[in-house]
Amino acid sequence: MLEQMGKAAKAASYKLALLSSREKNQVLEKIADALEAQSDAILAANRQDVDEARKNGLSEAMLDRLALTTARLAGIAGDVRQVCNLADPVGQVIDGGLLDSGLRIERRRVPLGVIGVIYEARPNVTVDVASLCLKTGNAVILRGGKETCRTNAATVRVIQQALEACGLPAGAVQAIESPDRALVNEMLRMDQYIDMLIPRGGASLHKLCREQATIPVITGGIGVCHTLVDESAEIAPALDVITNAKTQRPSTCNTLETLLVHKAIACDFLPELSQRMADNGVTLHADPNVFSLLSDGPATVVPVKPEEYDNEFLSLHLNVKLVDSLDEAIEHIRTHGTQHSDAILTRNIRHAERFVNEVDSAAVYVNASTRFTDGGQFGLGAEVAVSTQKLHARGPMGLEALTTYKWIGFGDNTIRA
Amino acid sequence: MLEQMGKAAKAASYKLALLSSREKNQVLEKIADALEAQSDAILAANRQDVDEARKNGLSEAMLDRLALTTARLAGIAGDVRQVCNLADPVGQVIDGGLLDSGLRIERRRVPLGVIGVIYEARPNVTVDVASLCLKTGNAVILRGGKETCRTNAATVRVIQQALEACGLPAGAVQAIESPDRALVNEMLRMDQYIDMLIPRGGASLHKLCREQATIPVITGGIGVCHTLVDESAEIAPALDVITNAKTQRPSTCNTLETLLVHKAIACDFLPELSQRMADNGVTLHADPNVFSLLSDGPATVVPVKPEEYDNEFLSLHLNVKLVDSLDEAIEHIRTHGTQHSDAILTRNIRHAERFVNEVDSAAVYVNASTRFTDGGQFGLGAEVAVSTQKLHARGPMGLEALTTYKWIGFGDNTIRA
Repeated sequence: MLEQMGKAAKAASYKLALLSSREKNQVLEKIADALEAQSDAILAANRQDVDEARKNGLSEAMLDRLALTTARLAGIAGDVRQVCNLADPVGQVIDGGLLDSGLRIERRRVPLGVIGVIYEARPNVTVDVASLCLKTGNAVILRGGKETCRTNAATVRVIQQALEACGLPAGAVQAIESPDRALVNEMLRMDQYIDMLIPRGGASLHKLCREQATIPVITGGIGVCHTLVDESAEIAPALDVITNAKTQRPSTCNTLETLLVHKAIACDFLPELSQRMADNGVTLHADPNVFSLLSDGPATVVPVKPEEYDNEFLSLHLNVKLVDSLDEAIEHIRTHGTQHSDAILTRNIRHAERFVNEVDSAAVYVNASTRFTDGGQFGLGAEVAVSTQKLHARGPMGLEALTTYKWIGFGDNTIRA
Repeated sequence: MLEQMGKAAKAASYKLALLSSREKNQVLEKIADALEAQSDAILAANRQDVDEARKNGLSEAMLDRLALTTARLAGIAGDVRQVCNLADPVGQVIDGGLLDSGLRIERRRVPLGVIGVIYEARPNVTVDVASLCLKTGNAVILRGGKETCRTNAATVRVIQQALEACGLPAGAVQAIESPDRALVNEMLRMDQYIDMLIPRGGASLHKLCREQATIPVITGGIGVCHTLVDESAEIAPALDVITNAKTQRPSTCNTLETLLVHKAIACDFLPELSQRMADNGVTLHADPNVFSLLSDGPATVVPVKPEEYDNEFLSLHLNVKLVDSLDEAIEHIRTHGTQHSDAILTRNIRHAERFVNEVDSAAVYVNASTRFTDGGQFGLGAEVAVSTQKLHARGPMGLEALTTYKWIGFGDNTIRA
C-alpha cells in the first residue's frame, strides 16, 4: 500500500513542480474554502477521535489539543489563506553566470519532490504541513498521531477533492490512515519515493528516524536550552528575560530549561531569582553549590538530579547550576545541550563574542530570550519545523527549507575542453 | 578506538571554528611544505602499499592510481597551496535584519564541525579532503581504501605534525588506519561526533551508508547520465557533444551512458553516430528498434540488455534507445537515471524548456555535454563530491557545502511579546 502511495506522490510531484505561484495559490484558496464548506464531515470524524481518546483516558489538556470546532476549523482555513500571501521561493535563480567554455549556468530553486512528515496528534498540523508543501510545489505523505487518524483522513479527503477540482492528482497530499506502527518503519525506508523526512515529535521518534530511515531526515524540535547569567549581567532585566524564556509558553522547545549562574554574581542574583520564580510558580532544581542559597528563598527548590541536565521539562521546572567561568558554561552547554537555542546575559562584549562563536547551537542569543527561535519571529512567514541538525537547514525552517536547487546549463552545442 | 577519535575530532573542531582565514591558510602552507619535506616517509609507505597491491594481483591501471612519486607528491602539495587562494565561506553573513521586537538577527556561515569521509584507494584524496575541511574550519575523520592504508597513515602523520607545529590539535585530521570493514559500520553510527558523512565510491558503499548511517549522509557520485537527441537536433554538432560526453574521460560519473534518439531523426542520425563512435572506439548497446539500423554501420553493436539501462559503464560503451516523444525520453530518465546529469540536444525552445523543468536531476543541460558537471568547471574552485541527493547540496559541492549556518540574535535584554 505504501508503495502505491509513494508512486502516486512521486507522479504528483512532477505535476506540482510545474505550477506557477498563482496556480498554487488558487489550489490553496480552494482548499481553504473546502475546509469550511465541508466542516461537518471533518468535525464528525473529529468527534469520534475525541470520544475514543476520552475512553482511552487521555487528559483534558490532550483532549483539548485534539478537538476541532467550527471556529478552530475556520482558523485553520484562514491559515491556509495566509500561506497564499507568502513569497514562493520556487523558480528563484540563486546564482549563475557565463563560464569560459561558453556555457551559461544558473542555479534555480526547485521543489524537493515528495516530503514525508510524521507528527503528533494535532489536527491543525495536517492542513498546515499540506499547505506549506503545496505552496512550494511538493507532494506530501502525512502520518499523524493515531489519536487523530479519523480527523486526518477526513481532512485529507477534503483536500484531495479540492486538488482534483483544480485538475491536480489526489496523490499530491496523502495520509497513512492506519495507526499501525509497522507502517512508520516502512515509510522510513521509502527512499525511492520520499526525498526528505520531517519527524515532529519527541526524542524517541527522532532516534527511530535517525537509526532506521534510509531517507534524509531533518531532526530537531528537542530543546534543552540554556541561559548563562554572566558575572556582569544586569540583574533586573536578566530576571525579565529568564521569566520570559521559562514561563511565556513552557511547553515549547525553545523554552529555557537550565540556568547557568556565574559564581561572582550568585549571591546577589539567586535570592532575586528565587522571588521571581516563586511569583511565576517555577520549581527550581538546584545543584549542591546553590541549593543552600536558594533554599532560603520563597521559590520551591529541590536538589537537581544529574540526569535532569539532559531534561526537556516542558513545564515550570528550571535547573540552576553554578559555574566558575564562561569556559565551564560553554562546556556544560556542549555536553548537555541539544544545539537548539542558548543565551548569554552579559555586559561584557568579549564574553558575548566568545559565547556566540563557541556555542554550537542553531540559535545563540546575547541579552535576549531563547523564546525567539521561531519561524514567525524570525520573519520566515511560516515554520515547517525547527532543525537542530546542521545539514540543509538549521533552526527554524521556512518555505525555502522545502526546496532544493538544480544546476541548469545552456550551451550552443558546447563541449568541455 | 573510534570513540576516542570522535572525541578528539569534536574537541579539535571547536578550535578550528575560531581560526581566521589567514590562520587557516598558514596551516595549509605548513602542510604543503611538510608534504614535500617529508616525502621520503610517505613514498616509502606508498611503495609498501603498491608492492602488496601487486602481490594481490591489482591491475596495472589500479597500481598506477595508487602509486605516488616525488612529482605527484609535489603536485598534491601544490593543490594544497591552491586551496589557500579559495575564498573562505566561514564567517560570511548570509542575511539578517532588525525584528519588530528589537532583536537584531543574523544568519552566519559556520563550519559543520566534524566531517567523515569514506573514499576509494586514491592517496591524493587524503590530502585533498583534509585541506578542504581545514580551509572551512572542520575537523575530519578519513577512511580511505584499504590498498592505501600505509600511505594514508604516513600522510596523516605528516599533516598532524604540521597541525601541531601551528599549535593545533592532531585530532583535526585523523585517519582510520585499520582496513577492518567493521570499523566503517561503527563510523556510520557516530552521530554524536560526526556531523556529516561523505561516501565517495560505488553504489554499494552509498547503499550501505544510506541504510546503516545514523549520521546525515551526502550520497552521490553515481551517474547514469542521458542525452536526448531530439527530432530537431543539429546532427554534426550533436555528434561533437556526444563524443565529448562519452569519450573525454569515460571513467567519470558525468559521462554519458545512454543516448535517447527521437524516432523522427533516427534514420538520418544513427548512421553518422555509428561512424563517429567507431572512430572513437565506442561499442553501442542498441535497443531492438535501432539494432538493424546500427548493425549496418562501422561501430561495434550488441543488443542492449534491459538491465544495462541502469548501468554506469564508466568505459567506452553506450546504450542507444529510440524514443517516440519527449515524454517517453523524460519518463525513461526518471526511471533509469540517477539524478546526476542529463542533456537535451534540440533546436526546439519549448522542448528545451520542458526538459529543463521536467527532468529532476542535479544538472540539466540544453545543447551541452554532461561532462560539465564538475566543481572546477562550475567555478566553485574545488569539489568535495558530487551530490545526487537533494538536501543540503546538489550537484558539485564546493567549500560552501562544508559549512552550515547559525542564527545569532543580539538584544538589549529583549523578550518575546
